Amino acid sequence: MKVTALAGGVGGAKLVDGLAQCLSPSDLNVIINTADDFKHFGLHISPDIDTVCYTLAGISNIQTGWGREDESWVVRHSIRDLGGPDWFKLGDKDIATHLERTRRLNLGEKLDSITKYFCNKWGIKINVIPMSNDLVMTTVQTQDNGEIPFQEYFVKYHCQPKVKGFIFRGIEKADPAPGVIDSILKADVIIICPSNPWVSIDPILTLKDFRKTLKTKCVIAISPIINGKALRGPAAKMFKEMGIIPSALAVADHYRDVISGFVVHKTDLNEIAQIEQWSIMTTALDIIMSNKAHRKRLAQEVLIFCDQLI
Amino acid sequence: MKVTALAGGVGGAKLVDGLAQCLSPSDLNVIINTADDFKHFGLHISPDIDTVCYTLAGISNIQTGWGREDESWVVRHSIRDLGGPDWFKLGDKDIATHLERTRRLNLGEKLDSITKYFCNKWGIKINVIPMSNDLVMTTVQTQDNGEIPFQEYFVKYHCQPKVKGFIFRGIEKADPAPGVIDSILKADVIIICPSNPWVSIDPILTLKDFRKTLKTKCVIAISPIINGKALRGPAAKMFKEMGIIPSALAVADHYRDVISGFVVHKTDLNEIAQIEQWSIMTTALDIIMSNKAHRKRLAQEVLIFCDQLI
Repeated sequence: MKVTALAGGVGGAKLVDGLAQCLSPSDLNVIINTADDFKHFGLHISPDIDTVCYTLAGISNIQTGWGREDESWVVRHSIRDLGGPDWFKLGDKDIATHLERTRRLNLGEKLDSITKYFCNKWGIKINVIPMSNDLVMTTVQTQDNGEIPFQEYFVKYHCQPKVKGFIFRGIEKADPAPGVIDSILKADVIIICPSNPWVSIDPILTLKDFRKTLKTKCVIAISPIINGKALRGPAAKMFKEMGIIPSALAVADHYRDVISGFVVHKTDLNEIAQIEQWSIMTTALDIIMSNKAHRKRLAQEVLIFCDQLI
Repeated sequence: MKVTALAGGVGGAKLVDGLAQCLSPSDLNVIINTADDFKHFGLHISPDIDTVCYTLAGISNIQTGWGREDESWVVRHSIRDLGGPDWFKLGDKDIATHLERTRRLNLGEKLDSITKYFCNKWGIKINVIPMSNDLVMTTVQTQDNGEIPFQEYFVKYHCQPKVKGFIFRGIEKADPAPGVIDSILKADVIIICPSNPWVSIDPILTLKDFRKTLKTKCVIAISPIINGKALRGPAAKMFKEMGIIPSALAVADHYRDVISGFVVHKTDLNEIAQIEQWSIMTTALDIIMSNKAHRKRLAQEVLIFCDQLI
């Protein structure tokens, strides 16, 4: 089975790691959200690409969910000594990634090629594709604080401001990166990982030609909401502030026009009937991935579910 | 006595530190070469400003002559793991300086204001002024390898290529930074530190209006060449390759149109008579500054010599 996964940060990275444990590398493509990429200290930072790659390479910090394991903080402390901003926690090893990415971008190399190069260096065999080589910048429209760049909303303000919408600045001019549309066309199934629908998956879906292509394919999604709560991150809070009761049902509704299959958590059984009314085949699985073995187990179960759909 | 010093890297930094130990902060301005500033990994690196500031702050690496003491190399090693270039040795603490400088430049702040801010953070009381806020980039014209950016010549190629000239790209459009010309006008004496005449001092002298202003003042220089050799760096090699026998005499000749006083090393007594024929008052001192006390001692002796001249 040829699979293309769509993923954002932590939750997506975990399922992708599970899928990578189950599938042959040539059968798995992953399209990563880059709409929360940003410039900080002149560096090009791609948080979701890094989270997915560090996770796949086995060098991610499992405690924090972001950054690298065995990280040191000398640069950050020296920046603080200079009175510079330290709200975005940059570890020393992580900074090396941003520096080398920025150096290559400045030389004219594209993000997809740099990502491929990094994957090779880190021993990652599956195909990790940034959604676009063009800069898209998510901003959060807040109820009381105007429009805030996503990383400031997310990291600096700890998702506190109430949201009323999201703008993916630059999305209409952004071309899908080479391989993005092709990997959709060639896939037997597209898996939308348990990432944030609003800020991780929607940017990918909004890409030029993307939704149109997706509608020709078998697409399944895994709920990032369990029992009305997000396992981590602001997804549930965002649904609520957008006037929608956060639930697996709400997530299925969000993806309703593109998915034909949906996975809820094993305790969310009462939502299944309603979702299936929308002709979305639904299954209940243990979605929580606490370790590498859990990731593989969920991926296996998801792939069995996909097999029933295609 | 109001002093303005012109300085490049290590030798200049040491004498400036000596002067700072002798003079009241309000009586000492230092104009620093920025023509070997460059962009690396997207960072704006100002090697001479950093060497002078780290030295004045007492946080410089005395062994290497560049960078910071108690430095760590996590970023550099991780860049190497990614196959990135590591010829320019960036320490973790040092990277913080470049990141914060770059961040502030990207926000529109000027190099002189950033330098002032950093000096304040590092407890440096004297006025450290970059020669210009505009980018000037020294390139080395080599006999066999074409034109090479200075830092590549200096660090990557260890000064091996034979030089035939220097170009300060952008110098004709570069305005002296605020305070540069004024600090010359207000000074009782200008001290050209024992820095490289070709690549550290010449860029400053070539600045718009600079040489003209300098000619109205009492200027002394300290030879960076002792017994035909540079204490460190490629100054002697450069003289030789430019067809000039490296000597204190050659340095005095280099500065002949602007200086009225010159300091040779105590062993270079036989050059004094010839230099004085050019109406340049010359004295012999122990120019070698092996520790902080030596820097102060030389600064005191230089200031006594200045006192005789003005």
